Amino acid sequence: MAQSTDREAVRALLDEVRAEGRTSLTAPEAKRIADAYGIAVPGEELAGDADAAVAYAAAFDGPVVLKIVSPDILHKTDAGGVEVGLKGEDEIRAAYDRIIANARAYNADARIEGIQVQQMLPPGQEVIVGAVTDPTFGKVVAFGLGGVLVEVLKDITFRLAPVTADEAAGMLDSIGAAEILRGVRGGAAVDREALAEQIRRVSDLVTDFPEIAEVDLNPVIATPEAALAADVRIILAESVPEPRRRYTREEILASMNRLMKPRSVAVIGASNEDGKIGNSVMKNLVNGGFAGDIYPVNPKADDILGRKAYKTVGEIPGEVDVAVFAIPAKFVAGALEEVGRKHIPNAVLIPSGFAETGEHELQQKIVDIAAEHNVRVLGPNIYGYYSTWQDLCATFCTPYDVKGPVALTSQSGGIGMAILGFARTTKTGVSAIVGLGNKSDVDEDDLLTYFGEDENTQCIAMHLEDLKDGRAFVEAARATVPKKPVVVLKAGRTAAGAKAAGSHTGALAGDDAVYDDILRQAGVIRAPGLNEMLEYARALPVLPTPQGDNVVIITGAGGSGVLLSDAIVDNGMKLMEIPPDLDEAFMAYIPPFGAAGNPIDITGGEPPSTYEATIRLGLTDPRIHALVLGYWHTIVTPPMVFAELAARVVAEERAKGNVKPVVASLAGDTEVEEACAYLFERGVVAYPYTTEKPVAVLGAKYRWARAAGLLT
Amino acid sequence: MAQSTDREAVRALLDEVRAEGRTSLTAPEAKRIADAYGIAVPGEELAGDADAAVAYAAAFDGPVVLKIVSPDILHKTDAGGVEVGLKGEDEIRAAYDRIIANARAYNADARIEGIQVQQMLPPGQEVIVGAVTDPTFGKVVAFGLGGVLVEVLKDITFRLAPVTADEAAGMLDSIGAAEILRGVRGGAAVDREALAEQIRRVSDLVTDFPEIAEVDLNPVIATPEAALAADVRIILAESVPEPRRRYTREEILASMNRLMKPRSVAVIGASNEDGKIGNSVMKNLVNGGFAGDIYPVNPKADDILGRKAYKTVGEIPGEVDVAVFAIPAKFVAGALEEVGRKHIPNAVLIPSGFAETGEHELQQKIVDIAAEHNVRVLGPNIYGYYSTWQDLCATFCTPYDVKGPVALTSQSGGIGMAILGFARTTKTGVSAIVGLGNKSDVDEDDLLTYFGEDENTQCIAMHLEDLKDGRAFVEAARATVPKKPVVVLKAGRTAAGAKAAGSHTGALAGDDAVYDDILRQAGVIRAPGLNEMLEYARALPVLPTPQGDNVVIITGAGGSGVLLSDAIVDNGMKLMEIPPDLDEAFMAYIPPFGAAGNPIDITGGEPPSTYEATIRLGLTDPRIHALVLGYWHTIVTPPMVFAELAARVVAEERAKGNVKPVVASLAGDTEVEEACAYLFERGVVAYPYTTEKPVAVLGAKYRWARAAGLLT
Repeated sequence: MAQSTDREAVRALLDEVRAEGRTSLTAPEAKRIADAYGIAVPGEELAGDADAAVAYAAAFDGPVVLKIVSPDILHKTDAGGVEVGLKGEDEIRAAYDRIIANARAYNADARIEGIQVQQMLPPGQEVIVGAVTDPTFGKVVAFGLGGVLVEVLKDITFRLAPVTADEAAGMLDSIGAAEILRGVRGGAAVDREALAEQIRRVSDLVTDFPEIAEVDLNPVIATPEAALAADVRIILAESVPEPRRRYTREEILASMNRLMKPRSVAVIGASNEDGKIGNSVMKNLVNGGFAGDIYPVNPKADDILGRKAYKTVGEIPGEVDVAVFAIPAKFVAGALEEVGRKHIPNAVLIPSGFAETGEHELQQKIVDIAAEHNVRVLGPNIYGYYSTWQDLCATFCTPYDVKGPVALTSQSGGIGMAILGFARTTKTGVSAIVGLGNKSDVDEDDLLTYFGEDENTQCIAMHLEDLKDGRAFVEAARATVPKKPVVVLKAGRTAAGAKAAGSHTGALAGDDAVYDDILRQAGVIRAPGLNEMLEYARALPVLPTPQGDNVVIITGAGGSGVLLSDAIVDNGMKLMEIPPDLDEAFMAYIPPFGAAGNPIDITGGEPPSTYEATIRLGLTDPRIHALVLGYWHTIVTPPMVFAELAARVVAEERAKGNVKPVVASLAGDTEVEEACAYLFERGVVAYPYTTEKPVAVLGAKYRWARAAGLLT
Repeated sequence: MAQSTDREAVRALLDEVRAEGRTSLTAPEAKRIADAYGIAVPGEELAGDADAAVAYAAAFDGPVVLKIVSPDILHKTDAGGVEVGLKGEDEIRAAYDRIIANARAYNADARIEGIQVQQMLPPGQEVIVGAVTDPTFGKVVAFGLGGVLVEVLKDITFRLAPVTADEAAGMLDSIGAAEILRGVRGGAAVDREALAEQIRRVSDLVTDFPEIAEVDLNPVIATPEAALAADVRIILAESVPEPRRRYTREEILASMNRLMKPRSVAVIGASNEDGKIGNSVMKNLVNGGFAGDIYPVNPKADDILGRKAYKTVGEIPGEVDVAVFAIPAKFVAGALEEVGRKHIPNAVLIPSGFAETGEHELQQKIVDIAAEHNVRVLGPNIYGYYSTWQDLCATFCTPYDVKGPVALTSQSGGIGMAILGFARTTKTGVSAIVGLGNKSDVDEDDLLTYFGEDENTQCIAMHLEDLKDGRAFVEAARATVPKKPVVVLKAGRTAAGAKAAGSHTGALAGDDAVYDDILRQAGVIRAPGLNEMLEYARALPVLPTPQGDNVVIITGAGGSGVLLSDAIVDNGMKLMEIPPDLDEAFMAYIPPFGAAGNPIDITGGEPPSTYEATIRLGLTDPRIHALVLGYWHTIVTPPMVFAELAARVVAEERAKGNVKPVVASLAGDTEVEEACAYLFERGVVAYPYTTEKPVAVLGAKYRWARAAGLLT
C-alpha cells in the first residue's frame, strides 16, 4: 500500500477538471487521485512486452487479468484480447503472446499500445467507504457493509472528517453487523487496519480538498490480507458555501458573560400598557428582582413603571450590557443601529417576522448591522431569556425564580414554555432558560461555551431543530462534556419531523443518522423525546457520578425487579454478577425464600430494617457502583417510612464517602408520590408508577460518565 | 413440487427411529419425511443405467450432478466418479458412461450400485425455514434470511403453527430485510409462493407430529423459480409435556362470572386483629360497600367486625361464590378441602409460601385438591382482587372505588399496587384489578375470556411475566381483540429481565422474540413499559376509534409540531397529505406566515378563535381521521381557555356525528396541568410537558383498530 500523499498531483488534476467545466471525475482520474492519497485500489499497469507484464504481475498480490489495449479494438473479448486468473511467469508470458497473436489475427492493422496487467480482486467482504458534505457538519466520512446490508438495512456509520486512525478503526465496530468483519460462520476476519486506513485516507483527501463534495469507494473488497477499492467515484462541489462567522472562545465568553450576567439592561419598546410585550418584559425584570440598572426606552413616554424612560438608547447615561427588543420587526434595524452606536454588546430580539415568516432579507439586514457594530444577537423570534442567579427574567413569559444547576435552551418558544412549566411543577433548580429562535447569530455553541464555564451550571439541556454550524457545536460540546453533561433533544428526527422542521425554521434538516452518530461522537446525551430531556435535566445534577459499571437492584417487589432488569439492559447498563461472599452478605438480611443474585429480592412483607440493611450494604460494598431500588407499598413499610430511611441511609453513607448514584421506582398507592418528592429533594432520583424512568435517568448519567472519560 | 402428504410414511419412520432409541434423524430419514410432506428438496434418484439417468435428470429443473454409488469407492472424486453441471441427454449419457468407465479403471472389482442423479442447487438467496417447540407457545414456525443476516442481526420472525397460506406469506414481509426477497440491486425477486409453501408444509408436519421437537431447513435456496431446502434437520422430543388443564369457554365464563360478580363471599381467616391480612380483607369488603353476603370464617371467634363468624365454611348456611383465603400456606390445603366439599366454585388464595418460595409440592397439592372438587383457584401469592361495579374489594390493600371501563391484571403484587396508585391519582375508571400471582390455575386467558364479555369493561391491560398456556392466551386474545383492546406488559423482555423473572416465579421465561411476534399476531398491543401500560389503559377507552389513517397535527407551537411529527412516525402512523382545497380552507383561518401542509402551524400569537376554527375544520372534514393538537401557552389564549374551547368543539362535533380521536400536547406553565385534566375528563387525551405521550396513546389506539379489523 502506498503511504505517501501527493497533494500537488491532486491539485493539478482538480484544476484541470475545473478548467474543463466538469464536476464529475472519470474513473482514470479518480484512480490517479486514489493513488495520490494512498487509497488502495487493485494494481493496474500498461505492459509494453511480456517481460514487463511478468514484472508488474509479480508486484501485485494474487492472480492477474491481461487485457489488450488498442484504440482499434473495442470488443476486447471478441478479439481474444482478455485472459483472467493468470498466475506465475509461464502462464503470464504465454497469455501475453496469445493475446497479441489473437489481436493481430482479429485486426492486422490494429495499433497495439500494449497489454494492461490488472490485479484480480479476490472474493471478500464487500464494504462501502465514502465521504459526503453534510449541510450541518461539513465533511463527513461514512462506513458500512456493502450490498443489501447498507441498502436495505441502512447499517452505516458516520464521523466528522478528519478522523484519527483510532476513530477510523472505531467505525468498524459502530455498525450493527460489525461482527461480520471479525469473521462469522467460519469465515476469516478482514484486515481491519487496511480497512481503517482506507477510511482515514478518504477523510484526509476531503479535508485537504473541501471542493471534493463526495467520494465513494463502493465496493471495497475486504479480505484477511487487504482492503481494495474496486470502484472509486469522486464528485466536486458546484460551489463551496461561505462559512458562518466564527468567534474565538475568548470573544464568546466575553459577550456571553455580559449577556448572562449583565449589570444593566435596556428595554427597547418598554411600555406601560398591560398586555404589550414591552410591558411584560419590564414587569418581569422589575418584579424578578434584577439588581442591575433597568432602562426603559420609549420615544413617547417619560417614565415606565415609575422609571425614567429614554427616547433612544443613545440617551442612556451609563454603559448598557443588554438591549432587549420589544418592538415590531420593521423597527428593529433602526433601533439596532443605535444599539451598535451605543456599543451595547448584546441585542435580544424578541420580535418575530423575520426568516421564520419568509423575511430572510430583513433578517440578513439585522445580521449585517449587528456584525458591523460587533453586537451579538440573540433571536429574533424568541421569548427572551432567564438568568436566575442574576434574578434576571428578560422575557414576556411568566417569571421563574427557582435557582439551581440546570441551564436549558430551546429553539422553539412553545418548548420554552414547556420547560418553564415542567421546571416549576417539579421544582427543578435552573441556572438559565434561553430562547434561541431563528439563531441569526448567537446559537447553541456560544451558550454551550458559556455554560461550560458557568459555575452555577452543572448540566446543560438543549432543544434544537437544526445546528447552524455543526462543527462549532461539536467543538463546544467536546470542550464541555468532560466537565458537565450536555443533553440534546434533536427535533425533526424522522422524515415527517424533518419536513415540519423545514417548514418551521427554513433550516436545512440534517440527515438524522449523521446527527445521531456525530452527537454521540461529541459525547452528547441525546434525549429521545421532550419529556426525557426534561427529566434528564432535572435528575442528572442530583445523581453522583458512578465509579464503575456494577449496577445492583434491591427490590421489595419481585415484579418490579423484572421490569427494572429489562430497563437496565434497554439503557445500556449491566447487572452486576454478585460474587458469592456478597451474595451471602445480602442473604443474611433477607428471608430464605428471597431471591439471591441480582436483582436482590428482599420480598414484599419485609420491615424497614431489611430495606435499610440491604441498601446500606449496597452503598458500603466498594464493588457495587450504583443502586436501583424497587419499593413495594405495604403496611409493614409504608411509603414515607421507606423514603425517610432510604434518604437517611444515603445521606449517612455519603457523609462517610460512599457516594453512589441511587435511583428508585416506587410501586404503591398515591402516598408514593409524596415519598418520591421527598427522596428526589434528598438526592435519590425516585419516580412513582414507572420502572423505566429512574433507570433511563441512571442510564443517561452512565452515558455521560463514559463520554466524559470518568468510567474506565 | 409434490403436493401430497403421506402421514403413514412419517408415522412409520418415526416409530422406527423411536424403536432404535434415537431422537435425531439421519439426513436420508429427514429427506424421506420432507418428501412425505412435500417439502421441496433437490431431486435425487439412483439410476441403474444411462437411460434412467437421462429420464431422472429430465424430471428435475436445471442441471444435474452425477455421482458413482459404490460401497467400494469411498473417494468418488479421486475415482473420476463425480461430474457436475450436466445438461441435456447427450451430456448426461456421455458423463454416465465416462463415470462407469472411470470407476472400473479405478477399481475393477468395485461393486457398482448405479449412479446417483442429483438436481444441482442454483445460486439464490439463502433463507432459513424452521420449527421449534416453544415452552410457552408450543409449535412455532420461524423464517429468516440465511447466513449473517439471521445469525448476526437476528432478523427472524415467528408464528404459531399451524399457519395458513396467508400467514406463511405474511412472514416473508415480517423480517427487517424483507425487501431483499422482492429483489434489490437489480436482483430478481424470489418465488414467494414456493417459499411460503415450504413454511406451511413444515408447519403442517410439526402440527401433525407434536413429537417432532425441531425442524431446520437451513439453508433453503430461494430463486425466482423455486425454493429448495439444501439441508433438512429433524429432531424428536425426548418427551411431550402434559398439556395444562383446559376449560371450555362456557365453563370459564360460568366460574369467572361467579368470581367477579359474586352474591356471597367467605373470608377464611377473617380476623378482628388490626394489621392481620384477614382483618384488612374484611374491612375492605365491608367498607367497600359490597352488597352481597360476607361470611367471616374463624374457628376461634364468634363474630368479626360485628358479623357472625363460622368455624368452617361448611357451617355457612347459604351458597358461597368465592372463598378468600387469609391463612398461612400450611393451612390452605385443609381449608380448600372444605371449600370443595361446600361446592364453592372459586378460591382466592392470598397467602404466599408456595411455588414462589420453592414449595412446588405444596402448590401441586392444592391444585390437585381444587381439580378434584372443581374449584377454580386464583393465586396463590396475590393481593386479592377488585370488582368495582360490585363494590367488591377482596384484598388486603387499600380500597378502590372509581368505577370505569378498564380491567387490569398483574402477576406481581408490587405492580398491582402501582396500578392502584396510578389509577387513583389519574382518576382512571376501573372495572376490575386482579392479582394473578403464581397462576396455579386461573390465569390471563380465563380473565381475558371473562372481560371480553363483561359489559363494564372496554379495555383490558395485563402485566405478565410468563404465560402458563400461550395458546390458550392467543385464543382468548383473538376472541377479545375484535371487541376491545388488550394491552400487555410482558416483563422479562431482555435476558437480564428474563433471568429475574426466572428467579421470581420459577416460570420458564419465553424467548422475547417469540412472544413479540405471537402477541402481535394475536392483535395484542404490547406496552414497552409499566407507565405506558398504565397510560394506554387510562386513555384507550377515552379515545374513539379512528375511521382511517389520516392524522393531522394542528399546533400553535411550531416546535411542538416538529416533535409531534417525529412521534407520529415513531408510533407507526402517518401524517395526512393535505389536499389543496383543504389546505386553502385551513389557511383561511391562520396568519399568512403560518405554515401550510401538515403540521398545520397556526402560529403562537393566535386568539382562541383560531384554535376553535381550525379544530372544528379538522373534525368536520371527512377526509381527516384523527387530530393531534399542540398548544402553546400565551396570554392571548391561556391554558384553561384553550381547554374549554377544545373540549366544547369536540363535544359539539361529536353530537353532530363527527366522532374522531383527539389527543393534545400542552406546552406551558403549570396551569396546563389543570387544562389537561379538564380535557381528559371530556374525552380529549391531553398531557403536559410531553409531545410523545399523547401520540403514543393514539398510536396504541391505531394498532388496536388495525388488529381488530376496524381500519381498512
